[in-house]
Parts: sequence; C-alpha cells; structure tokens
Amino acid sequence: MTDTIISSATKEVVIGFGRPFVMIGEKINPTGRKILAEEMRNGDFSRVEKDALDQVAAGAHMLDVNAGIPLADEPALLAKAVELVQSITDVPISIDSSIIDALEAAVAVYKGKPLINSVTGEEESMERVLPFVAKYGAAVVAISNDDTGISEDPDVRYGVAKRIVNRAADHGIPKDDVVVDPLVMPIGAMGTAGRQVFQLVHRLRTELGVNTTCGASNVSFGLPHRHAVTGGFLAMAISHGMTSAIMNPMHAEVKTAVMAADVLNNQDANCAAWIRANRDPDAPGAERSGRRRGGRRARTSG
Amino acid sequence: MTDTIISSATKEVVIGFGRPFVMIGEKINPTGRKILAEEMRNGDFSRVEKDALDQVAAGAHMLDVNAGIPLADEPALLAKAVELVQSITDVPISIDSSIIDALEAAVAVYKGKPLINSVTGEEESMERVLPFVAKYGAAVVAISNDDTGISEDPDVRYGVAKRIVNRAADHGIPKDDVVVDPLVMPIGAMGTAGRQVFQLVHRLRTELGVNTTCGASNVSFGLPHRHAVTGGFLAMAISHGMTSAIMNPMHAEVKTAVMAADVLNNQDANCAAWIRANRDPDAPGAERSGRRRGGRRARTSG
Repeated sequence: MTDTIISSATKEVVIGFGRPFVMIGEKINPTGRKILAEEMRNGDFSRVEKDALDQVAAGAHMLDVNAGIPLADEPALLAKAVELVQSITDVPISIDSSIIDALEAAVAVYKGKPLINSVTGEEESMERVLPFVAKYGAAVVAISNDDTGISEDPDVRYGVAKRIVNRAADHGIPKDDVVVDPLVMPIGAMGTAGRQVFQLVHRLRTELGVNTTCGASNVSFGLPHRHAVTGGFLAMAISHGMTSAIMNPMHAEVKTAVMAADVLNNQDANCAAWIRANRDPDAPGAERSGRRRGGRRARTSG
Repeated sequence: MTDTIISSATKEVVIGFGRPFVMIGEKINPTGRKILAEEMRNGDFSRVEKDALDQVAAGAHMLDVNAGIPLADEPALLAKAVELVQSITDVPISIDSSIIDALEAAVAVYKGKPLINSVTGEEESMERVLPFVAKYGAAVVAISNDDTGISEDPDVRYGVAKRIVNRAADHGIPKDDVVVDPLVMPIGAMGTAGRQVFQLVHRLRTELGVNTTCGASNVSFGLPHRHAVTGGFLAMAISHGMTSAIMNPMHAEVKTAVMAADVLNNQDANCAAWIRANRDPDAPGAERSGRRRGGRRARTSG
C-alpha cells in the first residue's frame, strides 16, 4: 500500500494502489493558450477562475495550476493563481512550473499539503526543489529525466526515478510523497511510447512501490480524434498500475475511459460510481438488459 | 512469434503478436435474440445475411457464426448458416457451437481453414473435437474450463489452457493453431474479472506463447453505457497481450477503443489505420494541432 495524501485547507485526496484513479485537471496552463497567457500577464484571472470551476464540476479531484508565460513574473503569477483557485474551490492543487522560484513562491502561500510539480533527476533540480518539499511537508512529482535528457530506454528512466526517490529520502521525504511521472511521448512520433510507459509504470509500482502520474494529453498530440486515443491510453496505463494523471475531465471520452478503467481494474466497488454517472436510462448506450455471448460463458465457478 | 492463420476460400487473416487486433463479429448468434432464433428455425436466414454484411462493412476481420437454438437441428442450421455467409462475404469464419456434431457438420462444408469455436478442457470435448480439428487442419478456440467448471483462480485456468495445448499437440495440432479464451466474466458480478483476464492473457502470451480471444461483451453484462465498458476492457486486455476478440464492431465505442489500442500498443504502423479512419477534419474530436502540457514534456531523447 502506498498512499499519497494531498490536501487543501479543508479537503484530502489520496492517490493510491487499488483506489479510484485521481484525475488532476490540466486546463489552467497558458502553454499554447495565447489568450489565457495574455490575460494572465495583464492580471486578468477570470478565465483561470472559470477553468477551475468547470473542471471541478466535470469531476476533477485535483487541479494542476501552471503560469508559464515567457518573460512574465512567473513566481508572482503562479502564487496569485494558486491563491485565487484556493479561494473558489476546495480541491487540492498540483503546483506546476519548471521555474523553481515560482514553485517556491506558490508553495509559500498554499493552504494545505500541495503536490509540487515537479522535480527532475537533474542535480540542480533535486538540490533546489527537494529541500522546500521537505520544509513544507509537501508531496512532489518526480519526472524521470536527468542531466542527459530523456532516455527512450524504460530501464534508464526507471533508474532515474529510483535515484530521485532515494535522494528525496535523504531529505526526509518518504517515498509515499514522491509521485513518479514516467514521461509520456506523442505516440504519433514514437510508436513505442505507450508500451514504454506501461512497462515502466508496472515496475515503478511493483518494484519501487510508488504512485505515478503523467501529462496524459501529450500521448495523442497531432492525431485526429485525439481524445479517444488519450482515453484509451489512460485505460491501458491504469491496468498496468498508474494511479493518477494530469488530464482534461471535460473531455467526455477521456473521463469515461478513466471511469470504465476504474470498474475494470476493480477500483470502483460494486461499479457504484459508474452506475451513478450513467444511470439515466435514456443516455446513449445505456442498456440494462444485455445479451451474453453464449450462455456457457456466463457460468461462475463450478 | 505466434501466427494463427485462418482463411476463407480467398482471404487469409492472421492473429498474431504485434499485429493489428483481429475483430471477430459476434452478431450472428441467436442466443438472447428471439426473433433471429425464430427466423432461423423457420429457415429464414435474411437477418443472418444482413448481420454478416453489416459487420464486415463495420470492419470485422472475421465473423463468428452460431446457430444455438434449443430443440432445433443445430448441425443442419449451422452448416447452412456457414455456407450462406461464405457465399456473400470473403472473411474467414469462427464456427461456434457447444454441440460437437454441429461443429463437425459445419466444418465439413467450410471452404478454407476455419477457427473452430470451441474445445474445452473437459475430457469428452478434447477427445471428440481435437481429432476433427486435426483432420481438417483447422485452428481451434480453447476455453479454459474443465470437468470441474470454471475456476476463479487464474493459475488454475492457465493450467487448463496448457493441458488443452498439450493434448492438441498429441493430435498433431501445433500451438499456433490453438487460440485460448481465458473466459471473461461480467465485471458487475465479479470485480476481479478484469484483472484475472489481464494476468492470464499475459501468462498465456509470455509463458505458453499462444494467441488469445474472448467473448468481450460478457464483461459489461448488466451495466449501463455498457459499450464503453467493453471498449475499455478490450483496450486494457490488448495492452496485456490479447490478440483477438469476438465482439461487435458496429458499436462505435468498442471499435474505436480497439483501434486506439492498436495505435497505443504499437500495432498500427505510423498510426495509418487510425488516421485513415479519422481523417475527416470535421469529425468530432478531430484536432490537427493539439496542445502539449508543458513544452518540456515533448522533448525526445537528449
């Protein structure tokens, strides 16, 4: 059992083996969103507010908040965005930046125990991020690349993850508070990207005993009908042991795939969440009396 | 490499590791279809004809044909249905019956190399089915139950499958021609049904080296929005090594999940089939320029 507990001032979320998959809303991120970037730069956070509320309404258990805008004062923007989101929702936050000063500024104003996103296996990152993860008693996303870049070899990526977990322990951070991101490449550019992640997630869970997350949308970058690819990827990754992802719960195909995978991976007791979400008898595809293929296949243990 | 070759008079289909998943259309089956059963009993095969053409149009690589109607002359009906389907389509057939005489009658009229569905680990089944599988040079579905019933223990089911494969070898049937059905239970009745199959499929592939199939719809029996559950199950099973299934390609959610899983499991070279199927730029969800979550995640090997 590895439980990673993340909290806001009033609410706790647990990422853990055998538990329902944790959906971390990805939308509050100006990367590739020109209008949002421009608004945030000018101090207009109305879209951040809307994205926060919409994602929570769609079922996000946590929200990722990123303020990565070139040439902007990212530490101030990220801290402001985090404070704003905490003032209007009670879900815990993944504080997301590649700028270490921005992470620290936002963590300082955060109420609760955040997920700090992220530390990498690069020496500078580990030496600067892990001390304040420890200081604030936070959890941290560990990305499995290091000073040599991102390896295509899952064994190398496993080794990097293990090194970060060990270094975190040196700082007094338990492995329960390290959530590893195995790094998801676009499948359109690298056909092995999916299998790499499935193998790596399995090892991270069974050998290293850590929870995992990823930026799921990246897998379908550049493909048509991409949400179906992202959803399929998450279902497959869940069956290999992935326990959370940064994703968009407002895309019905992605959210449905995650909920179905929770059922199929025995993480939704008695299918209760699935039945609650789909109980409208007029919903497309809702069938209460299905047909079994061959009665002999429906027997239980004799 | 384990390639199971199935053919009609003019067309070959290969079930194999790393190859595109083989979709076997499930619809021609009177179990639970009262109108179809009544029509077939009365010699009206118009619905069989329509179901065959519709499923092939929807992308079925093979068709399962079952004529299991209580108190009917199943050997005659099954042979007639198989002949009819072969006269209007060129896809290979899975000849499906629990009545051994019916299997043999249909195999006798079949043109090509059929998939005989099925033999079980029951002594009588093995001793009666395997000789004519060998005689006709057919392939066979091996269902992992035996005289004691269906075990809930995946290790027991693995053992039954192994016993059938060994017995087949005694009859001169190579293991390439044995496609194991690990037996899929309804997830609503047994929460472990999915994980059991994933583990079993993995062992069947890596240890026994055989191809696998299943009656996929059974997993979602009794649940609302069941096609999404079936689709998610197939994507997950494919990531653990399943190579074919008896399923309904006319359900868009199921077929899309299989096609996405082929992409994600590196079985659709250059995503060619996926892009071809989804290239309409006005299709829902089609996005040619997606957003990556954080530029740093999109780097390739450094």
